[in-house]
Amino acid sequence: MPELRKDPVTGRWVIIATDRAKRPTDFVRERVQIRGTGFCPFCYKNESKTPPEVLAYRSDASARDTPGWTLRVVPNKFPALGIEGTLNRQGEGLYDKMNGIGAHEVIIETPDHNLTLATMPVARIEDVLWAFRDRVLDLKKDRRFKYILIFKNHGDAAGASLEHTHSQLIALPVVPKRVIEEVEGAKEYYSYRERCVFCDIIRQEAESGVRVIAENQEFIAMAPFAPRFPFEMWLLPKPHRSAFEESQKSEFEQLASILKDMLVRLDKVLDYPAYNYIIHTSPFPDVSNDYYHWHLEIMPKLTKMAGFEWGTGFYINPTPPEESAKFLREASVEATVSSQ
Amino acid sequence: MPELRKDPVTGRWVIIATDRAKRPTDFVRERVQIRGTGFCPFCYKNESKTPPEVLAYRSDASARDTPGWTLRVVPNKFPALGIEGTLNRQGEGLYDKMNGIGAHEVIIETPDHNLTLATMPVARIEDVLWAFRDRVLDLKKDRRFKYILIFKNHGDAAGASLEHTHSQLIALPVVPKRVIEEVEGAKEYYSYRERCVFCDIIRQEAESGVRVIAENQEFIAMAPFAPRFPFEMWLLPKPHRSAFEESQKSEFEQLASILKDMLVRLDKVLDYPAYNYIIHTSPFPDVSNDYYHWHLEIMPKLTKMAGFEWGTGFYINPTPPEESAKFLREASVEATVSSQ
Ligand SMILES: [Zn+2]
Ligand SMILES: [Zn+2]
Ligand SMILES: [Zn+2]
Ligand SMILES: [Zn+2]
Repeated sequence: MPELRKDPVTGRWVIIATDRAKRPTDFVRERVQIRGTGFCPFCYKNESKTPPEVLAYRSDASARDTPGWTLRVVPNKFPALGIEGTLNRQGEGLYDKMNGIGAHEVIIETPDHNLTLATMPVARIEDVLWAFRDRVLDLKKDRRFKYILIFKNHGDAAGASLEHTHSQLIALPVVPKRVIEEVEGAKEYYSYRERCVFCDIIRQEAESGVRVIAENQEFIAMAPFAPRFPFEMWLLPKPHRSAFEESQKSEFEQLASILKDMLVRLDKVLDYPAYNYIIHTSPFPDVSNDYYHWHLEIMPKLTKMAGFEWGTGFYINPTPPEESAKFLREASVEATVSSQ
Repeated sequence: MPELRKDPVTGRWVIIATDRAKRPTDFVRERVQIRGTGFCPFCYKNESKTPPEVLAYRSDASARDTPGWTLRVVPNKFPALGIEGTLNRQGEGLYDKMNGIGAHEVIIETPDHNLTLATMPVARIEDVLWAFRDRVLDLKKDRRFKYILIFKNHGDAAGASLEHTHSQLIALPVVPKRVIEEVEGAKEYYSYRERCVFCDIIRQEAESGVRVIAENQEFIAMAPFAPRFPFEMWLLPKPHRSAFEESQKSEFEQLASILKDMLVRLDKVLDYPAYNYIIHTSPFPDVSNDYYHWHLEIMPKLTKMAGFEWGTGFYINPTPPEESAKFLREASVEATVSSQ
């Protein structure tokens, strides 16, 4: 008998198909491979092919927009939003619109074309997190912005247009719908229980253990109770933390380590799948609060069943999270992870 | 300058990328073709390969589950939900779940393997609409169900697993999230204006005309103001109608005709794209109301940019609806449509 499960934060119902449950090997698709063919604007010496850098980490004295960097952030060459201008909100009969003001940046995670975030050393992954934070702190000074979306498209099937490993951020004058849903769901939960719903989830999951994939001192990695996608994973800070950008040094160290661990497990169990991750954090300006709890969601791109899901917000997931968590938890990756 | 537009019903913001606007020929992808190779359980003589029919239209005296039908409805062989049992709602700590009770049926639109809904005669398309209604009227007697989702996946890229043209319906004990959002948005609009938001949209669109694709006496076909996807289309009844299943004979005639017209235009302008459609209608039991207005949404599957959209509910659409409407409106299909 399939199960209908409700996400405790957003109230979304999901069908978990327990009968025809799918194992990792049932998902047939192309593995993500680095081909290294053709011109790459994110490799050394091609710095002039991107817009000028807005941030770079360099251990030597190399000059701006020249080789020597270990991480580089540049505006997207084809930005979805423009940085110059005013919002100019206006109506058009019963419609509302405004200028598409925002920032769209690319975080080039390493100069090495052959690495992925999963194969990068933990210290370099930590740098990626610092770069996210540095850019958020800088962009949030611009009072036009209400939210900064940090995400990664890994692999062609997940929407990556360049294979050289990178993340993206989009600073927005509005808050995305799903973030609003989560924040409002969390606020409602808080209003009658005076507890953070995510803290309660973490407590319950840590006790039962069936959906836990890994944990360290600061973070827990788990499959959510009502996942939309097979092998969906969430990484959450264990103590209550409302804003990604307020994380401390020790937290970024631990996050880098568990993020690498999760991505290595994903590659191992699902044979190098395409995936997306996104960071959900508190919208500006109320980033320090008791009701919302920031987290990172990883969604492997395994199925094409995106058809009516898009139009309905109704998802059918062929893999129960207890099973996906077990596969990921039991993958033997210790040696791989600790050696790097 | 790109534009941020807000959907007036759900409040969702969408980026409309006016700068790098995409024309139909910019979307490179495989065209949907009927290959007709291999075994097809939806063709004549293979009736025993599906579960027994729950409805069939036959102009002759042929027997159940044998050839002779012009349209046939069968339970899905691999249903997402089970029809037998009780809901048995229960908690699991802070989580809610229930048994996956529901119906999952397949509407085989024609016995002819070589047709698509776009190439079927209008009278046969009207039969498909009558079959939707017949099944809804039958299934809504079951008080466990709160909503019936009618949808079509056309083409592999849109999630169709069999190429023989068919639609599907899923009867659910819960209302899908996006339907709830629309109904609540429409209720809110109604509560202070005492007008249906969709009726207001139709009035404004008919006046301006820039997003209208076609209309007949009973229906309007238009690109919405804030579409999530390039070349997204909505078909709405022009008079206020809250429930699909309460449509009259003349309305189904007109809907069949404009639906065929839209699908022919889609094939012509976008070179036989994969697409999904879904019907959004009032949830049970309050199907006759003044605030919600049923409609059919058609979403061509042109882009792979589904990555972070899934996780955020935030969409970037590379084609302004004024342009997609113009392409579709100006496609010369009159001859094709009227000749069939
Ligand atoms: Zn490169
Ligand atoms: Zn918390
Ligand atoms: Zn067939
Ligand atoms: Zn209306």
